[in-house]
Amino acid sequence: MYRSHTCGELRIENVNEIVKLCGWVQRIRLMGGMTFVDLRDRYGITQLVFNIAKNKDLCEMTQFLGREFVIQVEGKVIERSSKNPDLPTGDIEMDVETLNILNPSEVPPFTIKDETDGGEELRMKYRYLDLRRTPLQKALELRHKMSQETRKYLNEKHFLDIETPFLIRSTPEGARDFVVPSRAGEGKFYALPQSPQLFKQLLMVAGYDKYYQIVRCFRDEDLRADRQPEFTQIDCEMSFVEQEDILQTFEGLAKHLFKTVRNIEFEKPFLRMSYAEAMEFYGSDKPDLRFDMRFTNITDLVKGKNFKVFDESEYIGAICVKNISEYSRKQIDELTEWVKRPQIGAKGLVYVKFSPNTSGIKSSVDKFYSADELKIWAEKCNAQEQDTLLILCGEKEKTLVALGELRLEMAKRLGLRDSKTFFPLWVLDFPLLEWDAENQRFQAKHHPFTSPHKEDFSLLDSNPAEVRANAYDLVINGTEIGGGSIRIHNSELQKKMFNVLGFSQEEAEKQFGFLLNAFKFGAPPHGGIAFGFDRWTAIFNESESIRDVMAFPKNNAGRDMMLDTPAPISQQQINELHIRCV
Amino acid sequence: MYRSHTCGELRIENVNEIVKLCGWVQRIRLMGGMTFVDLRDRYGITQLVFNIAKNKDLCEMTQFLGREFVIQVEGKVIERSSKNPDLPTGDIEMDVETLNILNPSEVPPFTIKDETDGGEELRMKYRYLDLRRTPLQKALELRHKMSQETRKYLNEKHFLDIETPFLIRSTPEGARDFVVPSRAGEGKFYALPQSPQLFKQLLMVAGYDKYYQIVRCFRDEDLRADRQPEFTQIDCEMSFVEQEDILQTFEGLAKHLFKTVRNIEFEKPFLRMSYAEAMEFYGSDKPDLRFDMRFTNITDLVKGKNFKVFDESEYIGAICVKNISEYSRKQIDELTEWVKRPQIGAKGLVYVKFSPNTSGIKSSVDKFYSADELKIWAEKCNAQEQDTLLILCGEKEKTLVALGELRLEMAKRLGLRDSKTFFPLWVLDFPLLEWDAENQRFQAKHHPFTSPHKEDFSLLDSNPAEVRANAYDLVINGTEIGGGSIRIHNSELQKKMFNVLGFSQEEAEKQFGFLLNAFKFGAPPHGGIAFGFDRWTAIFNESESIRDVMAFPKNNAGRDMMLDTPAPISQQQINELHIRCV
Repeated sequence: MYRSHTCGELRIENVNEIVKLCGWVQRIRLMGGMTFVDLRDRYGITQLVFNIAKNKDLCEMTQFLGREFVIQVEGKVIERSSKNPDLPTGDIEMDVETLNILNPSEVPPFTIKDETDGGEELRMKYRYLDLRRTPLQKALELRHKMSQETRKYLNEKHFLDIETPFLIRSTPEGARDFVVPSRAGEGKFYALPQSPQLFKQLLMVAGYDKYYQIVRCFRDEDLRADRQPEFTQIDCEMSFVEQEDILQTFEGLAKHLFKTVRNIEFEKPFLRMSYAEAMEFYGSDKPDLRFDMRFTNITDLVKGKNFKVFDESEYIGAICVKNISEYSRKQIDELTEWVKRPQIGAKGLVYVKFSPNTSGIKSSVDKFYSADELKIWAEKCNAQEQDTLLILCGEKEKTLVALGELRLEMAKRLGLRDSKTFFPLWVLDFPLLEWDAENQRFQAKHHPFTSPHKEDFSLLDSNPAEVRANAYDLVINGTEIGGGSIRIHNSELQKKMFNVLGFSQEEAEKQFGFLLNAFKFGAPPHGGIAFGFDRWTAIFNESESIRDVMAFPKNNAGRDMMLDTPAPISQQQINELHIRCV
Repeated sequence: MYRSHTCGELRIENVNEIVKLCGWVQRIRLMGGMTFVDLRDRYGITQLVFNIAKNKDLCEMTQFLGREFVIQVEGKVIERSSKNPDLPTGDIEMDVETLNILNPSEVPPFTIKDETDGGEELRMKYRYLDLRRTPLQKALELRHKMSQETRKYLNEKHFLDIETPFLIRSTPEGARDFVVPSRAGEGKFYALPQSPQLFKQLLMVAGYDKYYQIVRCFRDEDLRADRQPEFTQIDCEMSFVEQEDILQTFEGLAKHLFKTVRNIEFEKPFLRMSYAEAMEFYGSDKPDLRFDMRFTNITDLVKGKNFKVFDESEYIGAICVKNISEYSRKQIDELTEWVKRPQIGAKGLVYVKFSPNTSGIKSSVDKFYSADELKIWAEKCNAQEQDTLLILCGEKEKTLVALGELRLEMAKRLGLRDSKTFFPLWVLDFPLLEWDAENQRFQAKHHPFTSPHKEDFSLLDSNPAEVRANAYDLVINGTEIGGGSIRIHNSELQKKMFNVLGFSQEEAEKQFGFLLNAFKFGAPPHGGIAFGFDRWTAIFNESESIRDVMAFPKNNAGRDMMLDTPAPISQQQINELHIRCV
């Protein structure tokens, strides 16, 4: 054994013990005849003392030490004269008797500190050095805790952790697959799974009842900000359940994780909201409810007063922003520019400020509306003195989305998106289908096995767009961290679904043949959910990016900067796969 | 909720309760006016009773039921008149009041019973039905337990579960990689990892100290019996440790799994044996020690007696087989043929039978050796009355291996390879290098980062073949279930190692550049081990094949019979990858 203790372990009780430590040199300070070295490992930092008066040769050896050298020291634990209350080991230090340099280090290309001077590219290239920094270490420890607590909860509920294959078959539906050429040749390929969806449904057919897996998934998509070509899911499925059973079970999981990982107790059930309500009042299917600013539909109230812009709008909606009535003209102008950016796409911004005492009500539309009328708006929107209404108008669907973006922006500006506050929310009753304008047909919003609401069966023929699905998302702080659905287990209903999606029986057979075949042999009612494990961990870790909670992430172009891959392979490898690069 | 209880849950205490069950129809029996249905789910079987006298319509509905139909029933728990002590629910049955057919089933292509009539191909194709059979279900439950207990043990020892990437860089060393073409084009590929070896070493450089992962690995090899292109490893690494620390830690893991999964307690430390000893006395680097038959080297004893075959042999070795002195001439002849098969490769078999009372000592070489001489052999080999010595001779290395095969074969014939008995063993001191005759150079036996024994450093120059490595295997019942090594962390030693392996500095840089680079920044002493999780589970499950402990295995040709993959992909997919199939 190289060490008797870790660098985070020694306390005042250990004084006078002879101990051995190993670790990395964090810092070296010379003070008179004393040399102090901060020795770091995963568990903490311990201060080492070398006293020139006591042992000159040993003390001189410290001259050869540098940052990030790996050393082994033996010595006596002594009480510090000036204690460091910020450090768990701050009451003691080690009076070093022997020093052994286990490995020297070149000067690292950036400082190994909480706040580093290294740019992102450099840190990605030297990821193994970046990973030495405390914030990343804490992130990976939190991730470990998340996965173990997830397992603990699900194991106790009799879920079985069952591994599904990675070398599977490509299905053209959905996102682009990564494929793996087979040496069998003849243009044959495996594909890497985008999720174990089909396998977990097969496991239900196989009678496994409660399944989970914390599993890698792959998507060869053009990478958007903070997407990774490989990511991890908490993947779950249950049989003989209805939607309510799934919500209860996984609300339990979320509460367990909040409690064990973040020490936050949610006593009440999570809020539930329909997709329709979320869109109508927050302009998003994943509203951030850490703050209010619910939309007020003022369309009926404001139309017909000769203000042409409103009169020609399908929808006029307001958010009431607290305590910004002192916003300057410049600030309002800047906000107006912000909503007019193409990403938001509003035509303009109407405001109504309710300033206290002094100037009273001020609005960009006070030419068209009297103070009394504006007071009625205020009442409708629950605006108080010092508040401001921000109003957008236009085509309804687009305006709701733009208002949703404005709501988030205002919350950001006002510091209401506090990463230490968590607001979990179930969004329910998603539409079953969405219209694919390009191909002029309906597409499954979730996937083609998602079951419609029983009450909406009849609409499948008459008005498919209105059919609600037994589908649900778990949203935390405006981020979708999981989603799932009750699946169709009835083959007649499945046929109808394929029909609505414009699949011929033949196409359905070709793409999903083995699953449809499996369903002929006694499929139980079942449903499930999958959580984005990286995303959930990032939220719990208060990280902006999922890269901060992955040991070896790829950059936004899908490259591993450390390995410098994707990379060419040998011609022999290519030949064996019966392919050629063009 | 579709059910109030599972089919394995109801007991005599539940009598008179109204309950709801769901499951699959296992069996239907008509007895007079009664219909009995065995309802099955993952948890067990409950007997349902339909009484024609009580409810004619309901009873008649059972006519429409068939094997593997999924049903939901509600009714009262009643005490059985004739109890079934073999079934945990055998004291009760359900007097059914309502029956709901949730899903019908076609007649399955084979029977869903412990012993099925389906051939392997058919069962692979309908894996979801095969998985309904109890032996497979028990296997996956055992696998679940194995992985959870592994995590539990390692978590308690402060190991961190850290995920490493699957889309990595191809390294030409070792087995063939599966590769993943990148849309970046220019002939660029990712590769799937054969193991996270490099990443776990980087994590040690990054200071993570104790790492583990239960992780999928990939090898595109020509499949031998019971190999799978994707398989699962328990992958571990530790810093600041010596070999002994690793052995202690993972012997602890093995004991924990034996105890919790198989309820077997190993009080004493596992036996340890050097590679040299294993080869010398068992002809294998993974000896099965559930039985004895240790080799006796009788070379010196038997040479020089004018028996030319022995006199010309480098090595003559015997195993003493208990209680087979009554083997017939025919049986001995058959054994002789067996050792002469090309897979074994012996020239012939010499026997010495020590029959009791009657005929005394009989041997195929009694022309050359007197009874007294043969008695000395018996003594040397610890043979008693009724035992038989089986003797092979020839070139030493080959003879040892052949004798090892014969030893296993005899154990099999005598029923000594009992799958319920477990003999774990550490094999230590593997050679660092092996001679690659084809390329006329040394290869790393484990991998090029394996550290040599300190005492053997000097041999690296003078006699590399004799250098022992700090490498170890855990063997159970003749199967290697895990192996690892202490790694080289010193760059001078690493250079020397590359030198011995015939790598130029340039080649080493090219293949392992990023790891060698990482090692410049303070690599701690470290080492690790990886266990074949499928194999270990198979041994604990007393399965012949790892396919029996995998949910969705591939066949011996690497095909998934259920998905019918590898399979062609669309031309669009191929085009996007900038490849062409030839």
